[in-house]
Amino acid sequence: MFVIITYDVDEKRVAKVCKKLRAYLDWTQNSVFEGEITKGKLIKCLRELELLTSDSDSIYVYKVENPKHIVKEVMGQDRSFDKFMF
Amino acid sequence: MFVIITYDVDEKRVAKVCKKLRAYLDWTQNSVFEGEITKGKLIKCLRELELLTSDSDSIYVYKVENPKHIVKEVMGQDRSFDKFMF
Repeated sequence: MFVIITYDVDEKRVAKVCKKLRAYLDWTQNSVFEGEITKGKLIKCLRELELLTSDSDSIYVYKVENPKHIVKEVMGQDRSFDKFMF
Repeated sequence: MFVIITYDVDEKRVAKVCKKLRAYLDWTQNSVFEGEITKGKLIKCLRELELLTSDSDSIYVYKVENPKHIVKEVMGQDRSFDKFMF
């Protein structure tokens, strides 16, 4: 499936959450990750995030079962390419 | 259709971009907006955003034609309710 995960977590946990999400998905922009992932891996990823975060943090998961059902458009700079430039 | 729009724009344009997106969609978290919108209104919204932003800014638009094809889950706090609390 295709997922988009956005997070808004306490500053002191940002790096850990970001690192964890990088292990499963592609960073796109700010606090947004996206990518194709199996249901099993997504469950694993969310369990691991749960251990890293607190109830006051916020993580949104948008799931689209069939990647063909979602279309992505970029206006302006495609930040997801920045990672290849550093 | 259902859309998720995320932005990463220069600090001096954040307020304008945010205000514009609020006119069409629901703010969810950080620089993320979502909501159901007609194709016509989305085109209008994106044209207006284009006028407000520069090529160095970045706006991502994820479109799902049938809202039934996308499922949203929230871990932790649902920030989208914060707006009703202030």
